[in-house]
This record gives sequence, C-alpha cells and structure tokens, in this order.
Amino acid sequence: MTFSFSRLASDGQARCGRIHTAHGTAETPAFMAVGTVGAVKAITADGVRATGTEIILGNTYHLMLRPGAERVAALGGLHRMTDWPGIILTDSGGFQVMSLAQLRSIDETGATFRSHIDGSAYHLTPEFSTEIQHALDATITMAFDECIQFPASYEEAATSMRRSMRWAKRSRAAFVPRKGYAQFGIVQGSVYADLRAESAKALTQLGFEGYAIGGLAVGEGQTAMLETVEATVPYLPNNLPRYLMGVGTPDDLLSAIARGMDMFDCVIPTRAGRTARAYTSRGVRNLRNARFAKEVDPLDNACGCIACSRHSSGYLHHLFRCGEMLGPMLLTAHNLTYYQKLMKGARSAIVDGRFAEFVRSTRKEWVNPHD
Amino acid sequence: MTFSFSRLASDGQARCGRIHTAHGTAETPAFMAVGTVGAVKAITADGVRATGTEIILGNTYHLMLRPGAERVAALGGLHRMTDWPGIILTDSGGFQVMSLAQLRSIDETGATFRSHIDGSAYHLTPEFSTEIQHALDATITMAFDECIQFPASYEEAATSMRRSMRWAKRSRAAFVPRKGYAQFGIVQGSVYADLRAESAKALTQLGFEGYAIGGLAVGEGQTAMLETVEATVPYLPNNLPRYLMGVGTPDDLLSAIARGMDMFDCVIPTRAGRTARAYTSRGVRNLRNARFAKEVDPLDNACGCIACSRHSSGYLHHLFRCGEMLGPMLLTAHNLTYYQKLMKGARSAIVDGRFAEFVRSTRKEWVNPHD
Repeated sequence: MTFSFSRLASDGQARCGRIHTAHGTAETPAFMAVGTVGAVKAITADGVRATGTEIILGNTYHLMLRPGAERVAALGGLHRMTDWPGIILTDSGGFQVMSLAQLRSIDETGATFRSHIDGSAYHLTPEFSTEIQHALDATITMAFDECIQFPASYEEAATSMRRSMRWAKRSRAAFVPRKGYAQFGIVQGSVYADLRAESAKALTQLGFEGYAIGGLAVGEGQTAMLETVEATVPYLPNNLPRYLMGVGTPDDLLSAIARGMDMFDCVIPTRAGRTARAYTSRGVRNLRNARFAKEVDPLDNACGCIACSRHSSGYLHHLFRCGEMLGPMLLTAHNLTYYQKLMKGARSAIVDGRFAEFVRSTRKEWVNPHD
Repeated sequence: MTFSFSRLASDGQARCGRIHTAHGTAETPAFMAVGTVGAVKAITADGVRATGTEIILGNTYHLMLRPGAERVAALGGLHRMTDWPGIILTDSGGFQVMSLAQLRSIDETGATFRSHIDGSAYHLTPEFSTEIQHALDATITMAFDECIQFPASYEEAATSMRRSMRWAKRSRAAFVPRKGYAQFGIVQGSVYADLRAESAKALTQLGFEGYAIGGLAVGEGQTAMLETVEATVPYLPNNLPRYLMGVGTPDDLLSAIARGMDMFDCVIPTRAGRTARAYTSRGVRNLRNARFAKEVDPLDNACGCIACSRHSSGYLHHLFRCGEMLGPMLLTAHNLTYYQKLMKGARSAIVDGRFAEFVRSTRKEWVNPHD
C-alpha cells in the first residue's frame, strides 16, 4: 500500500477524503487522539478504537526522554508496544522543546535543551528528530521545526520560519522512505500572512506527502488562527492532506474544516475528560456541577459511548466527586467519541453538499439545545 | 430464582459450589472485586466482567456518605447505576466505621460517628444499615456488626461479639426478604476460638442464608487467621456459603479454601494494581523494578488479560514510570484476572479431587518458577 490521499468529495473549501497508509486507512476530516508517551491518557487502545479514532499521535520529545526511541524500537516499535496497529503520527519534538524543555537554546544545527524530567541534556536536530521518528515506526513523520512563542515580532517570526524551512529541507533529506509511510512539512510564520505564504511556497518545493500548519493554538485566538489558515491554504497542494496542528475545540475544528483543513490533533477532549469537562451535542458541561447529582439521564442522549450508553450523569458526577479514576476513564471515552462523531458528521455533510448547514445546526444545538 | 447454594463437589474440607440469586449465579470458591463507592477502582464494569469476576462488593459506609443510599436508589440502584446487573454484596458499614470514621462511639443502639470526608454526624444501627443495603439493592446484605481492633483482650472481644450477636438478631429482623436476595450473618470473636464458636452458634439460630467470618485480616497474621477459620468452620452449616471477609493474598485464599471457605473479598489485587505490584503465576512482581524496562515478554505468559495479551512488561514498566493512568488500569485488569484464574483453578481441582496437589504446584511455581 503506497501512501496516498484520495479526495472523495468537497463542499466549498471543505474536503472529505481518505488517507491510505502502511497501517491502514483513515477518513478525513480526521481528529487524531494524542498519545503523548505512547498511551492516550486514561483509556486503553481498545477504548480508543471504540471511539472511532483512526489515528493516534505520539510526542517525539516525550518518547525520546522516556522510554527512549531505541527502547521503543526494542519493544517492537510504537504500534506493537501500544497495541495500536493503526496509523500513528509523531510530531517532531519542536513544540515541546518550546513548551516544556529547560535551558533551551536554538542555533542553526538544532535545539539544545535539558529534559524537564531529570535535567539531562539533549541536542535535537532535523536529522536526529527524523531518525527518532523512524525508530518509533511512525506512519507519518513530521519535519523538525522551531515553534516560537506568541506573540512574536515580524522579524523574529521571519528569522525563525526561514530557519525552520532550512530544517525542513534537512528533515526531508534525512527521511528514509518506506512503502506506505509519509513525511509532512510544517508551515510556520506566526500570524503573518506573507510569511505563511513564503513558508508554504518553500515547503512545497520539497515534495512532502502532506503539509501541516504549525505554530498556531499558542494563544493567538480563534480569529487570528483562522485568518492564518485562510492565508496559508491557497499555497498548499489541493491533492495532499492538510493538518492543523494542536487544534482545537469542536468549533475550531468545524471552522478549520470549512477552510480546507483535513487533520487535527488536540489534548482538549482527553484533558477535559480528566477534569470533568464534557463535550456534548448540547454544548460543554462540567460534571462537577451539583445540578448533575440527581440526573438520571445520560450525559448526551445522542451519544453511544460507554459513559452515555451505560451510566447516568448522576453517576458520573458521583465518580468525579469521589475522585474515582473511572470518572476520567469514562469521560475521556465520551469526549473522544463526541469528537469522532463530529468528524463523521462533517464528512457526511461534505459528501452530501450540506456542510454549511451542518455547521450551523451543530452550533445552534451547542448554544440553544432544542429540548 | 430463589437464593440458594448448590454444593457441586468437595475435596477434603474444600468445596466447589454455585450461588443462585436474583442477579445471576456465581461459582465458588469466589473472589469478589471491591467496588467501594460503586466503582471498582481503575476499571470499567466491562473490564471487571472480562476478568471473570461474578460478584462485586459495595461499601455501605462509603455509599451512605457519598452519594447516599437514597441517591443510589434514585439513580436506579447499585446494579443499574454501576452497570453491574450481576450479583452485588454490600458490607454493613461496621468495618469502615472502625477503620475510617472519626469521633466514633458505640453503644447498644449502634455506632455514632462523623464522616471522614466532611465531619457530618451519623448514627448507624442494625436497622438503618439493613435499610440502606435494601435501598442500594444489594443481592447479599450483611448483618451489622462491630469490628474491633486487633489485638483485643478476651473481655473486649467477648463483650463486642455478644453485642454484635444482638445486632445480628436486629439486622435479621430488619431484613426485608425478596426472592433471590440473601442476608449473611457475621461471626466475630477476635482470635479466641471459644468466642468464635459461641458466635457461630448464636448466629446460626437466626437462619441467615449464608455466614461470614469477620474481624480478621486486621493484623493478626496468616497463622492466627487460619486457626480462627479452623475453629469456626465446624460450627457453620455445611449447606450454606461461607464468606471470609477482607481476605486476602493468593496464598491466604488457597489456605482458606482448604479449610472450607467459599467466598472472599479484598482490595489487594486492585490496590496492588495501582501501585505497580503484579500478582502472577510466577509470584509477585514490582513493575517499577528496572529489570522490566527492556522486557519484551508479557508480565505472565499464562495470562489472557488485556495487559498480558497485548503488551510487553517493558511497556507496563514505562507506563508506571511516566505516571500514566493506563498502568494502573492494565495492572488492575491483570491482577483481578489472576485472582479469578486462581479461583477457577481451585474449583477445577476440587471437582477433580486434586486440590491439595493444585495448591502445592501453584505455591511451588510462585516461589520457584519452572522456566
């Protein structure tokens, strides 16, 4: 199976497609569950599959620190180790170097930093990041990039983006092609439209199998995020997958799909699931709220997940109130199921040419449920 | 379905049987998973079922504090609320009043105490405990008893036991019979054989559907525990289930089965599962131990649980090292599976008349694995 992307339908800018890989296929728009250190938090691999998730993401930064790429390889690679024979995408480590690592310094060769866990020193380069992702057996490898803070001045953003583009070229050169595997480049340039265009043009010269928009969801807000997506998409190939990294809320996803994005990852559904925050067809609910204590109905009547098909909201409230691990477990399953149901709804709507209406009715139900 | 106990086979003192209830049947010897506040910690009800567990236990003390028996009833009863249509046994609250509650005082009417959570005051009586367990919809209700500390003087133990026997009579009077439901009495008397005999004789006058030995596994050690079992069993009806409360390790279970006990509950497999301690056919393993870091084999080749059938020991080690919730989740499933496999092995051995050999070979493998 060669890595490929089939566009099945489009509706305005929104696309419905299918990614074919060495580890199976995934429908797009696709939401990828974040499996940081080789585990989606508070849910088994079977549980993740039951939510409809087709791709999980591993974090190169976390995995290189613990247990280490060689150890993952010795334990059979990330697929075997985590009981996820399906598609795995690994990030390049760049984002966590910015957000977690200590004493970091960047030069042309790469990023030098100390582990946030034990202070040990690392030097991560485009070549090393690519090699690590190969050892992890990532289906989709991401090019190594620098993620700068927001806000960044135009000059900072330009300098950083251009270095990331040189790193993208080195990442591409270091990538060892395998049948059904892919490598995606990452567009940078902060919120500056011309830098994003310059970045996309430079990247697409390198012939990646897909393109990501990185450096967003770092505090710029939804409006700036979507404007940046709009400024970038025209420069990305129409026939390849487009991945918006680290995004986002259900509304962010619908908004970005409407602007032509195909793939997403975010910790929101899993993190929220551990803190009693539920995403539902009727909006966001905090299960710690006392009004759920007596609620015999499930969290979301429209949901077929284990939490909603087996339990009352009152029980979920009780579990969170008691600090029972089962609360996070059930709500993580629910939130991922909700996200996947939203993606499935988006795909159907795109195929049927009613995506705008789908977005409108979904949003209306979040704010003003009909019953 | 009337509540009944069928003895299917015996081998020496060891018995293999089946409990028939309004909520299905359970094979004995049976290990019951502890579901404290209405949830077995770190595992879903489906997960518990997959381990082979047929009975879960709820703690009246915990449930009366949170969410309260009326709330459980309003949420459909413990079976519906927890997604466990099978057999549920609830304890009487006596044990946790001793071990958890604050400012407790005991008089002839019952126990007065303050919640360990918020300090609110409660007065638990035999009648109220029985009423709560009815509201919870417990398949098997336990008589309300006083659990005294170990060690206790003979006089303390005698006074307390005799009060517990008067409470047992009141509990029995307060029990509302329902078809397929049962109430068990609890033998007390600390480690004093004559008090245990006196207690068992008094209890069996009351015509419970089963009998428990309580007040053990509180620090007296295995030898004293087993001597107390030996001193008590002759006074318990042969044709009714015998439940040893709060016990124990795999070796405790085999030893107590050999002495005629049928049912057990203990937090050991679930608590150990949350702290990286694994019970296996080759003995106890601490998964935090560095020797597991590179281990590609599963924890227990003889085990079919999700942890052993899908993952390497190296991965489990990694999960515990990273503090991932999935570590406790997988190891809880494993430990419960191991306990149930041990019970299943014991039942088969009893049926085949080779229980002593089963115990011998199981113990040998724990200490001196054959490969």
